Amino acid sequence: MRVGIIGATGYGGAELLRLLHQHPHVQEVVLYTSSKEGMNIQESYPHVSGIYEQNLQSIDLTSIKTEVDTVFLATPPGVSAEFSGAIAEAGPQVIDLSGDLRIRDPKVYEEWYKRQSAPASLIDKAVYGLPEWNREEIKHARIISNPGCYPTATLLGLAPLVKSQLIDVESIIIDAKSGTSGAGRSPSAITHFSEMNENFKIYQINQHKHIPEIEQILKEWDELIPNVTFQPHLVPMVRGIMATIYVKAKKKLSEKELRDLYKGMYANEGFVRIREEGQYPATKEVYGSNYCDIGLSYDVRTGRITIVSVIDNVVKGASGQAIQNFNIMNGFEENTGLQLVPMYP
Amino acid sequence: MRVGIIGATGYGGAELLRLLHQHPHVQEVVLYTSSKEGMNIQESYPHVSGIYEQNLQSIDLTSIKTEVDTVFLATPPGVSAEFSGAIAEAGPQVIDLSGDLRIRDPKVYEEWYKRQSAPASLIDKAVYGLPEWNREEIKHARIISNPGCYPTATLLGLAPLVKSQLIDVESIIIDAKSGTSGAGRSPSAITHFSEMNENFKIYQINQHKHIPEIEQILKEWDELIPNVTFQPHLVPMVRGIMATIYVKAKKKLSEKELRDLYKGMYANEGFVRIREEGQYPATKEVYGSNYCDIGLSYDVRTGRITIVSVIDNVVKGASGQAIQNFNIMNGFEENTGLQLVPMYP
Amino acid sequence: MRVGIIGATGYGGAELLRLLHQHPHVQEVVLYTSSKEGMNIQESYPHVSGIYEQNLQSIDLTSIKTEVDTVFLATPPGVSAEFSGAIAEAGPQVIDLSGDLRIRDPKVYEEWYKRQSAPASLIDKAVYGLPEWNREEIKHARIISNPGCYPTATLLGLAPLVKSQLIDVESIIIDAKSGTSGAGRSPSAITHFSEMNENFKIYQINQHKHIPEIEQILKEWDELIPNVTFQPHLVPMVRGIMATIYVKAKKKLSEKELRDLYKGMYANEGFVRIREEGQYPATKEVYGSNYCDIGLSYDVRTGRITIVSVIDNVVKGASGQAIQNFNIMNGFEENTGLQLVPMYP
Amino acid sequence: MRVGIIGATGYGGAELLRLLHQHPHVQEVVLYTSSKEGMNIQESYPHVSGIYEQNLQSIDLTSIKTEVDTVFLATPPGVSAEFSGAIAEAGPQVIDLSGDLRIRDPKVYEEWYKRQSAPASLIDKAVYGLPEWNREEIKHARIISNPGCYPTATLLGLAPLVKSQLIDVESIIIDAKSGTSGAGRSPSAITHFSEMNENFKIYQINQHKHIPEIEQILKEWDELIPNVTFQPHLVPMVRGIMATIYVKAKKKLSEKELRDLYKGMYANEGFVRIREEGQYPATKEVYGSNYCDIGLSYDVRTGRITIVSVIDNVVKGASGQAIQNFNIMNGFEENTGLQLVPMYP
Repeated sequence: MRVGIIGATGYGGAELLRLLHQHPHVQEVVLYTSSKEGMNIQESYPHVSGIYEQNLQSIDLTSIKTEVDTVFLATPPGVSAEFSGAIAEAGPQVIDLSGDLRIRDPKVYEEWYKRQSAPASLIDKAVYGLPEWNREEIKHARIISNPGCYPTATLLGLAPLVKSQLIDVESIIIDAKSGTSGAGRSPSAITHFSEMNENFKIYQINQHKHIPEIEQILKEWDELIPNVTFQPHLVPMVRGIMATIYVKAKKKLSEKELRDLYKGMYANEGFVRIREEGQYPATKEVYGSNYCDIGLSYDVRTGRITIVSVIDNVVKGASGQAIQNFNIMNGFEENTGLQLVPMYP
Repeated sequence: MRVGIIGATGYGGAELLRLLHQHPHVQEVVLYTSSKEGMNIQESYPHVSGIYEQNLQSIDLTSIKTEVDTVFLATPPGVSAEFSGAIAEAGPQVIDLSGDLRIRDPKVYEEWYKRQSAPASLIDKAVYGLPEWNREEIKHARIISNPGCYPTATLLGLAPLVKSQLIDVESIIIDAKSGTSGAGRSPSAITHFSEMNENFKIYQINQHKHIPEIEQILKEWDELIPNVTFQPHLVPMVRGIMATIYVKAKKKLSEKELRDLYKGMYANEGFVRIREEGQYPATKEVYGSNYCDIGLSYDVRTGRITIVSVIDNVVKGASGQAIQNFNIMNGFEENTGLQLVPMYP
Repeated sequence: MRVGIIGATGYGGAELLRLLHQHPHVQEVVLYTSSKEGMNIQESYPHVSGIYEQNLQSIDLTSIKTEVDTVFLATPPGVSAEFSGAIAEAGPQVIDLSGDLRIRDPKVYEEWYKRQSAPASLIDKAVYGLPEWNREEIKHARIISNPGCYPTATLLGLAPLVKSQLIDVESIIIDAKSGTSGAGRSPSAITHFSEMNENFKIYQINQHKHIPEIEQILKEWDELIPNVTFQPHLVPMVRGIMATIYVKAKKKLSEKELRDLYKGMYANEGFVRIREEGQYPATKEVYGSNYCDIGLSYDVRTGRITIVSVIDNVVKGASGQAIQNFNIMNGFEENTGLQLVPMYP
Repeated sequence: MRVGIIGATGYGGAELLRLLHQHPHVQEVVLYTSSKEGMNIQESYPHVSGIYEQNLQSIDLTSIKTEVDTVFLATPPGVSAEFSGAIAEAGPQVIDLSGDLRIRDPKVYEEWYKRQSAPASLIDKAVYGLPEWNREEIKHARIISNPGCYPTATLLGLAPLVKSQLIDVESIIIDAKSGTSGAGRSPSAITHFSEMNENFKIYQINQHKHIPEIEQILKEWDELIPNVTFQPHLVPMVRGIMATIYVKAKKKLSEKELRDLYKGMYANEGFVRIREEGQYPATKEVYGSNYCDIGLSYDVRTGRITIVSVIDNVVKGASGQAIQNFNIMNGFEENTGLQLVPMYP
């Protein structure tokens, strides 16, 4: 396969470069850009010296059509809305890591994203790329909308309980914590090292763009689920997300029942690992890998279940999951190029 | 005043050294130890070179009685249970930063702390040192039980809503995050730098010792409050606690009503700062100071209030609050020696 | 005293706010700005809420003259060159934390700073504010040029050996490491958290602006000293500088002789602490304080002396030293407002 | 190939697990231990759940002989001295990541390591595994002594200049900085998170065990080289080493000559990358990879060359280099299993 990346100078792009280098079915990687035409990728990323030597090319549909079989978009808002449809029509598969195609209802999109939605016709064609719960659709998709990082950790953590209807639907609270790489590569006051180190921040209270994405999927799974509470925080680290999820159980559950439910539902999932009783994952235990690790607890004192779901936001929360989707779309083993042991310490 | 510190080689002790150096009414500091007799404090803490030159003395009641007016205990479990009663009887005031005297019910203590409770007679004499809500009792106390770090952030964050009975008592969830200094100075696998940096951890799920302390005070404030959910996390930073607290409002509140409630209740409190609408504190905004900063939000979509309460765990969560109590007990201005601008960045 | 700060929204300014709040002779602080007129300081720095409530005023010489007795400039390049002369002429003392007035030779300034030098007449009036070695001049100064952070650590570390002419003047190498706060508050790619955490960088190789400042003073002390090698590095931390300095001893020295030399020369200096044999300071041992801690070693195998000099770059390397100069200029005890125990941990 | 690891619960062991998982010629990994017999590797390292499921076995020569073809020792001092000889005699190749076999002169070993040297007969058989400069010997070795992390960065940085005899041999100074993982997995005061974060430390001044290793190899390359100055520092990060190396050039060199020398000497080396003029590597640019990146500068003002050499201490400084040696010994492509793009950010 020959693949193209639009937006290689961002962090999602850098991670695609890292992961695709290990993919046995990827022969060629072409880099496109909307703004840095002619720049060599090493100017932006010295760490790929000696591995990637390409210059960035401008986005040209005629070239793209002939040069690559799949295009990954790791782009700022608006780029995918503009190009994805045309690329897919021209031939190549499209895997969009941006948020442009995730929200089905344009009104909801516009309310949360404060910008115009992509055309409805384009959104209709985009398949939500959460393989563990949407694999069949992904197999036949031409355009993938890759999930957000917080939704990935949250939805994988909640799915078994929601789908089993074992919880009070009104009770869902997600307290999420992320490393700074999720905020992207553009310097900003909030992610300035002197302001972020030795600091812990809450941000976008009640306003994060991933809220409607989480709600959209939860409601697809159980239409009774109302709006949820989701608050994101910034941790002074680069990679990693932990979603600590609180729900009220409808009835008393033993720790074993809880664990068996998750182990059963994820029995065939190579990238989801359920911790044993009393064990909870730390973010570093999935560092650099495509795993989602989940710990579970039922508190008899309160009747509440706490779900601890961790991912590497740049891998399972972005580029790794994109390649997982790429594998499914193309009939490869799902873990091709993704058999990475987390880097520890 | 002449003050003594038992446990000066721990972090609570080090912070007492820092803060007491600026206290205009403290003329002398004597250091006691149960295990490191004869060691010079600079061997343990080179950063106090040229400021504190004392050797550590053994704990001897006869000496303590004549040498100091107040004793701070920043000690491991059990030390205060053993010595606090006798010290207070001998004359000096006692301010205990350990958890030994916090839990009134010995059964509850033994269940959560997995060790024997201090004598009931001693616990009865100990006054819970949360000045903002217990000032009158502190004025007349001989023995102070200084609150835990998590309870300080949590209780100051919850008090106005609990005392106004504006929330569904069943709904309280506290998701707490702390720097590593709260875990103390003894090296351990969990706080080994290579295991903790670039990592975010949850720990002691449903089992943290501060849970019964929080519940005890909440139930004093409103006996209808049931057990609460509290989950602590470790952030790769040294100082700072954020408690993100989720509660269901009984009725719709405007952001202004919410803020006015807090501003009113804390109007005369010099160490509690309420952020304006849309503003939320980060832990660094109280770094090195005795402040508790609080941000508030009411989410119309879910009817939930999110309270964000931050402190420096070593100051307002330990040694600073201890000195605040010391000031109250001795009739000094409450902020004496504590007028510290947070260190930023 | 009434003091003014120009540039309060930068890190040097924030630290002045912290330190001046504890200064017993400072009654009033007025904030001036060249670009943010009318902004309240809390908008920029929520951590000073409830302590400083001022708005930023524009720089107006007539007001400055009547409003304040001393002006601290913690400003970007060029501001001090423009205003310092006029302020001093109008009456107030000037303490300049920027680099504008440090280099006596305009050609040298222009070569290293790549901009026009301040007027020679202004530079002539400016006294280099390194109190340990320039106290008498500072006493009578109207304009202080506060030393750079690296020069402070380096010069205090080198002075005793240079002044005793015990080293091979050709042999001086300074390998310096700094936290990121020295790079200021403006977000940039180099100090973006995701690029700086879990990373260690060298920068401005052979080109740092502090090189000519170090050389200028060294040559004043011993005209035989040639150009030196100085390489700065960025550490993933916010505060702290360590200068590891390598020199060749002219003759064999015992560890005791070396230490006695330093202890003798700094015997009356309250802010310089010499470590005992085999002890070396870490940057955290001076965190938040005005100390410069120095460790020393003579290696018999190589005949080289290694000097380890640490400061908090924001305090002794900037605002703390500025206040030390302020105290000297005004006849206050030199440590007034600066008796800070380092914050540890 | 079937490989064994002794010491899998340390960081060198963990990294071998990560890297060997990607090695196409490694079919089986057996874990041996001297102290944790029967423990499952997941108890020590939850991050390998679902990938490695083995229990640790005791070290038994008879089993080792039949079970594996190569044994990696990532062990504390003394283990390799005890077992390496016997293992190699029994058949399997030995690659020793510990320091036991690095120093050829027992007296030197005992002086620096403060313990008894391994038998001379064993040391004689051990080949120093720095492939870029010792490849031929490695090809025919049965026992490899894998270089230390600091020596790897230092020697690769110095080799071209030393071998070309372009520098004053008396002038070599190495100022080295390392992440904490080099200190191993055992908790200690020095690497306790609260003591290490926001801190920068120098340690083992003039006493680091890697000094005689560096000197031994330099003297092999040029017998005129005397003792060198080497000072190591600890950076508040987990992975990465930067060696900043200072040498005096015998004669003036252009930047181009300097660069051409290095590019020439390393032209066929896949794991050494030379930066272009004015470019210097940061440690993160090799994070998780087997690269050694080198930046170079000649300062006309001082006649000194500064060499900046960075590696990931756990990869090129330990386990990656061990696998590189493994590949050479077994006739595989040298980069087999090591074609890793650095993880960024």
